[in-house]
Amino acid sequence: MNRKLRVTVWNEFRHERKEKHPARTLYPDGMHAVIAKALAAEPDLEVRTATLDEPEHGLTQAVLDQTDVLTWWGHAAHAEVKDEIVERVQQRVLDGMGLIVLHSGHLSKIFRRLMGTACSLVWRELGEKERVWIVSPGHPIVEGLGPYFEIPHAEMYGEFFDIPQPDNQVFISWYQGGEVFRSGCCFYRGRGKIFYFSPGHESFPIYYQSEVRHVIGNAVRWAAPVATSGFREMHLFPNVPVPLDPIPGLAESK
Amino acid sequence: MNRKLRVTVWNEFRHERKEKHPARTLYPDGMHAVIAKALAAEPDLEVRTATLDEPEHGLTQAVLDQTDVLTWWGHAAHAEVKDEIVERVQQRVLDGMGLIVLHSGHLSKIFRRLMGTACSLVWRELGEKERVWIVSPGHPIVEGLGPYFEIPHAEMYGEFFDIPQPDNQVFISWYQGGEVFRSGCCFYRGRGKIFYFSPGHESFPIYYQSEVRHVIGNAVRWAAPVATSGFREMHLFPNVPVPLDPIPGLAESK
Amino acid sequence: MNRKLRVTVWNEFRHERKEKHPARTLYPDGMHAVIAKALAAEPDLEVRTATLDEPEHGLTQAVLDQTDVLTWWGHAAHAEVKDEIVERVQQRVLDGMGLIVLHSGHLSKIFRRLMGTACSLVWRELGEKERVWIVSPGHPIVEGLGPYFEIPHAEMYGEFFDIPQPDNQVFISWYQGGEVFRSGCCFYRGRGKIFYFSPGHESFPIYYQSEVRHVIGNAVRWAAPVATSGFREMHLFPNVPVPLDPIPGLAESK
Amino acid sequence: MNRKLRVTVWNEFRHERKEKHPARTLYPDGMHAVIAKALAAEPDLEVRTATLDEPEHGLTQAVLDQTDVLTWWGHAAHAEVKDEIVERVQQRVLDGMGLIVLHSGHLSKIFRRLMGTACSLVWRELGEKERVWIVSPGHPIVEGLGPYFEIPHAEMYGEFFDIPQPDNQVFISWYQGGEVFRSGCCFYRGRGKIFYFSPGHESFPIYYQSEVRHVIGNAVRWAAPVATSGFREMHLFPNVPVPLDPIPGLAESK
Repeated sequence: MNRKLRVTVWNEFRHERKEKHPARTLYPDGMHAVIAKALAAEPDLEVRTATLDEPEHGLTQAVLDQTDVLTWWGHAAHAEVKDEIVERVQQRVLDGMGLIVLHSGHLSKIFRRLMGTACSLVWRELGEKERVWIVSPGHPIVEGLGPYFEIPHAEMYGEFFDIPQPDNQVFISWYQGGEVFRSGCCFYRGRGKIFYFSPGHESFPIYYQSEVRHVIGNAVRWAAPVATSGFREMHLFPNVPVPLDPIPGLAESK
Repeated sequence: MNRKLRVTVWNEFRHERKEKHPARTLYPDGMHAVIAKALAAEPDLEVRTATLDEPEHGLTQAVLDQTDVLTWWGHAAHAEVKDEIVERVQQRVLDGMGLIVLHSGHLSKIFRRLMGTACSLVWRELGEKERVWIVSPGHPIVEGLGPYFEIPHAEMYGEFFDIPQPDNQVFISWYQGGEVFRSGCCFYRGRGKIFYFSPGHESFPIYYQSEVRHVIGNAVRWAAPVATSGFREMHLFPNVPVPLDPIPGLAESK
Repeated sequence: MNRKLRVTVWNEFRHERKEKHPARTLYPDGMHAVIAKALAAEPDLEVRTATLDEPEHGLTQAVLDQTDVLTWWGHAAHAEVKDEIVERVQQRVLDGMGLIVLHSGHLSKIFRRLMGTACSLVWRELGEKERVWIVSPGHPIVEGLGPYFEIPHAEMYGEFFDIPQPDNQVFISWYQGGEVFRSGCCFYRGRGKIFYFSPGHESFPIYYQSEVRHVIGNAVRWAAPVATSGFREMHLFPNVPVPLDPIPGLAESK
Repeated sequence: MNRKLRVTVWNEFRHERKEKHPARTLYPDGMHAVIAKALAAEPDLEVRTATLDEPEHGLTQAVLDQTDVLTWWGHAAHAEVKDEIVERVQQRVLDGMGLIVLHSGHLSKIFRRLMGTACSLVWRELGEKERVWIVSPGHPIVEGLGPYFEIPHAEMYGEFFDIPQPDNQVFISWYQGGEVFRSGCCFYRGRGKIFYFSPGHESFPIYYQSEVRHVIGNAVRWAAPVATSGFREMHLFPNVPVPLDPIPGLAESK
């Protein structure tokens, strides 16, 4: 693809607008603004944003049709995301759009619907250290990294994380308090690709950290749609009455 | 487990009750009766049935709580299955119950919800030959089989089949008319296990075929719940405030 | 299978015979004796042992032919294992025998040959705490366990562990000093199944720990051969000149 | 990566030099010449060739060090490939070089060594039709394709194909005579990536077919090395005596 990849950075954008919430100080214009700015600095990416409180959550059919990869951050208001929009996003993913689900997005309607599982986990918010280990060093999402990187203060997310076994497991995190977590997970679904990446939190400056931003950029490129032709839309299941190859003794078959 | 595995064979049971439908001749008491009888002949299985038109589709919480493995056949009336029952079955699967999805069950609400994809495919009903090849000969589901078996007259199901890549691919089918199909697919979800098996059709005597019955029996045993303790219910995502291991310099951490 | 599963517990058995080595105190008759005794206490298992310094390393063709599942512990003398015996074991695995590779067996000739990778890792021997987390709670290998178990004093094995991505990832370990490790890994190869399980060390009493013994027993049952018929030996690649199905217009094809 | 990808096309180059062999007519300068010319027409690829009868089979350490992706075609002379060269190629793959194994290369020493299995299959040479179906339509290797493509006259390769389950299954082939085959398979190994692609034969003009050439080009890009830093060479397994995180009560641990 020679044109730029079109990325839409979606954010719930509620914590950052609450008075006295740490998110307001850390991300005064919203986490989406910080993530979008980081991605827009890449020469091959073209970035827009969308948030929950916009009409249709900013995710009209037109916006989605012009989106190659969507990133998703939600937490407190998962339930407010309208089912028809979730349906629309799922359809676009199955038809090829990439989806990057960030941190607490693990409980979003869209991620749970695409995984088919509860996507639950255990958690703790002490600001402990997280060390993100690479377990698939040939995968394009780890380009530019070394064997691990650290997040100085993180919310702990721990196993058992109720997801399908990823098609490619890229990262596994270690936490100071005793847990592990499958923190970077690739999934192929329909014609689309999904990457779940747990680092990132509204009360820590994790989206300012260079490794985290770098991984999100790599993930966007990995999740880019693949141009194919002739595949039906995924919700269709056509009858194909005439066989491709003749069947001996079968009249209809020529 | 020394007690018998408790299997519930679920069937939509509509085709078989239609006048002049071939299913009525082939399966006068319903496909569930034929499948249940085959399974009940195994000394380690205890079998009951349930159908769409029973109250709660025969799947009360009590029935599900006493079911180790549920088999599912549906086709014309997927839409009539109540969402609350689908939710209940999904929760039981995530909490450990096995699920065997048969043939046209690929478009059932429960399978689509657990897969997260459209589960669509292409199809053709000429009664052509299907040859089911084994591609995982060490898997317990193929116990007792040889390199392939044939179904003399089958409905064709063809790729692209919109499912997640299976955790273990067991069977791939060849069709006379030119298609291939991933016809035996294992999925781990939550604490449960799911097997999709495409052979079987309301208008062909496929559920009388010994290999097909044998595979369903093997699949039931493979999908049996695994006894563990201390796992939360999958829809919960508990906060665990105190770390398992002390964190240096952190007061809460002891 | 109604007869007992036949298990052969293989051990290098060198550390335990060195004067003043901690292994001598911990495992005076060898780690194989301790593992074999634990397994032999199970009513469905029949156990024998074999060690490096026996003729043919105790792994004659006759012994292997009567072995359903082989467990392997080696460390200091991997290079002394004869290539022809390694070849013989590999062939048996591809033809259906189960293989459980323990701890430092990750660098054994047989495991590296079956994986095709270097199977290297990083390590540290401080006796720190290891916490073994379950990430596949529906897998039969975790039967009887809770969300995690602890090993009070362990050798650290850390990522990047150079193995193929497991077919089923069962355990991931956390170490006090900052690493994670894929400590329980299932692989299907040929008609056989392989489980790598890292806990266990010559200088710690890990093979006396109930959870570790329990996992090895579960793994033996999971890795049991599956009875099939008609599969060729895996090293053969036969020509099959006559097609199974007639090819229109092709004379040879009838 | 802004520079061109450096591809080395390796060929046994024996069939094509035999008098009266069909390969001589079809590929007078060798299959490598035809494949290399196709790849060299791509603006992002830089291509060289190497063959069995060159010194060190054309695969000196210097050549491999300057190769990003190696393609491999061998058939009659697998046994003549020197073990030390195989070792060298394996090491480069584990350290990041991509490897595309073509057709009868399934029995090459390098592929069997990297897979750990026999890589055997069944085969038939009648020139029947092969239909290559896509089962992973979001994968970059299928870019530019539709749901399937046909090879008018092919050698049949059939299951059971003794390989590890691929990390991503991309293609499954249908054959007129009754078999299926996993014909496009992705494997991650060490820091490298491997793609096995079965279409291609010395006696059929398959390497002139546009879809086949296109897939090989896509596979080369997918298998390109990923730039990382700090990963050890894969054959090393270093001791890391000092923990990354302090261990309470442990003197060495600071």
